[in-house]
Amino acid sequence: MSRFWSPFVKDLVPYVPGEQPKLTRLVKLNTNENPYGPSPKALAAMQAELNDNLRLYPDPNGERLKQAVADYYGVNVAQVFVGNGSDEVLAHAFHGLFQHGRPLLFPDITYSFYPVYCGLYGIEPDIVPLDETFQIRPEDYRRPNGGIIFPNPNAPTGCLLPLELIEQILQANPDSVVLVDEAYVDFGGDTAIALVDRYPNLLVTQTLSKSRSLAGLRVGIAVGHPDLIEALERIKNSFNSYPLDRVAIAGAAAAFEDREYFAGTCQAVIDSRRQLVSELDALGFTTLPSTANFIFTRHPGHDAARLVAALREQGVIVRHFKLPRIEQFLRITIGTPEQNAALVAALGALV
Amino acid sequence: MSRFWSPFVKDLVPYVPGEQPKLTRLVKLNTNENPYGPSPKALAAMQAELNDNLRLYPDPNGERLKQAVADYYGVNVAQVFVGNGSDEVLAHAFHGLFQHGRPLLFPDITYSFYPVYCGLYGIEPDIVPLDETFQIRPEDYRRPNGGIIFPNPNAPTGCLLPLELIEQILQANPDSVVLVDEAYVDFGGDTAIALVDRYPNLLVTQTLSKSRSLAGLRVGIAVGHPDLIEALERIKNSFNSYPLDRVAIAGAAAAFEDREYFAGTCQAVIDSRRQLVSELDALGFTTLPSTANFIFTRHPGHDAARLVAALREQGVIVRHFKLPRIEQFLRITIGTPEQNAALVAALGALV
Repeated sequence: MSRFWSPFVKDLVPYVPGEQPKLTRLVKLNTNENPYGPSPKALAAMQAELNDNLRLYPDPNGERLKQAVADYYGVNVAQVFVGNGSDEVLAHAFHGLFQHGRPLLFPDITYSFYPVYCGLYGIEPDIVPLDETFQIRPEDYRRPNGGIIFPNPNAPTGCLLPLELIEQILQANPDSVVLVDEAYVDFGGDTAIALVDRYPNLLVTQTLSKSRSLAGLRVGIAVGHPDLIEALERIKNSFNSYPLDRVAIAGAAAAFEDREYFAGTCQAVIDSRRQLVSELDALGFTTLPSTANFIFTRHPGHDAARLVAALREQGVIVRHFKLPRIEQFLRITIGTPEQNAALVAALGALV
Repeated sequence: MSRFWSPFVKDLVPYVPGEQPKLTRLVKLNTNENPYGPSPKALAAMQAELNDNLRLYPDPNGERLKQAVADYYGVNVAQVFVGNGSDEVLAHAFHGLFQHGRPLLFPDITYSFYPVYCGLYGIEPDIVPLDETFQIRPEDYRRPNGGIIFPNPNAPTGCLLPLELIEQILQANPDSVVLVDEAYVDFGGDTAIALVDRYPNLLVTQTLSKSRSLAGLRVGIAVGHPDLIEALERIKNSFNSYPLDRVAIAGAAAAFEDREYFAGTCQAVIDSRRQLVSELDALGFTTLPSTANFIFTRHPGHDAARLVAALREQGVIVRHFKLPRIEQFLRITIGTPEQNAALVAALGALV
């Protein structure tokens, strides 16, 4: 700690992202990236931006991308916000929509960045345990709060909350923003964007890092009532006028426009997930029902930390959280059929 | 205002960037972009990133870029921070280094984002007037404060504060961070990075949007004592783990590595500035001494707002601030020789 730091800085507990190993030849199934590359049309759109116009500022509003999102989801541009990855979008939402002097509700097992944002913006978390099957129970979200946030499907469990149960939470909390973080929704869930016209307290965030294969480009979006979007815009325009560069705006817009490629790669991941779960079943694993591009699985006869270490020795990296209730689970990203086969072979030799 | 907003949001007065007109064929001299495109080596480095690896997260620490900056300036990687444009870097500095319950000192005429950050982070500004020749006087920065920030050269004046006067401010304020915002320093100033090893309270920020012709890519840096960099890293890692995408890291690093192209384009801008000032002198304008890629100029016989409007009718856009002390000035970005000639011809018909 330095005397120059703003006092709250010493108490920050930053988020720790999954390892990004510099070695190649690893079977990297630890950070939920897509096994398939981005749309060729997205690559071509980015290519077209690599010229002398990079000397010029981008469109500060990213209108081209907002329009592509609006077209894709059948909403208005005024219902769309775009940012430098959904983490930036979430940060602005915590800052602009959750600072009410009342606690923020979120599940005990969830995206570990949420408590970090609470620390950054001085928001008190009120942790709501998942039930014994790791599901969100809407009736648990009926206590005083200044906001509610959860991923859907949840992470790292992969479990989906149906839209009718999300509506129960929205209806029980008309004076709070309910943020549904849909980083993984495209792998089998229904988006709550279908509800934004009926619930002014609903904000939905998504990322292009998973289903659209652009983790390396850093683009996220939010969709909701224009009043909520305006709060995000006010924060953004007081923080950084131009969060998205020219290449990112073009690539992200083209990724939304290329529906066929998107549908094909999502389906391939879904198919691989089904097969992988079946093969892990055969090895004796118990896997939570997943609609994400990862699974959360455990083996009743083998310690998770030891399995993770043994896998790593064979060049397969998966993620493990040393946290209460889930320390016996492995979180495994769905890879290509070849990567999944390598994982199953490695596990088969261990269990 | 919506009941869902965090209460401070309604009082935010966001920054308003210079206009980004969608029309082409304009002589756009309003946002201080470089008239020359980025280094061909930077374009090639970005090109090399447009492949299936974009499905993978970037290096969260941007080490390749940090190393290029460290090599360029002869500092250690631990003295370098990188972010999504210098605006993001500045925002983190306000948040992490200036929240001390004491006022932040900055000039009355300066980058208009500084008071916006104060509003975002609840920091009280204490405005220090420039002297009658629009210069910063070090003796004015000897009052109680929780931090000091100014651009060098200053914007929108273009006036440079010599390093020995910056040292006076640093020495008079050993318990405050002094942030020198060097967005424009490469067009004729000396960087205060030369002082970081001697002053643990000095933080220097730079952008790649001006001298390195990459406004469209969104990359900024900070250089200072590792303790100051650690505060920025703690904020960044509590906000967004991956602020720089793969294309930006590669392009920015290559831009720092291509010293020859950089030196050539900076010198071309400096040469054009000298000629433009001389031509404006001949038209009766009075121009402040500039070491930036813009000039701040006025004509004793013509109202600035009317000149700006008349220029716009001829397709030439410059920037005008309706603010006390400077409302009779035009801020004109140095363009190509052809753009500057078009500006001079248009002004010649007006004055």
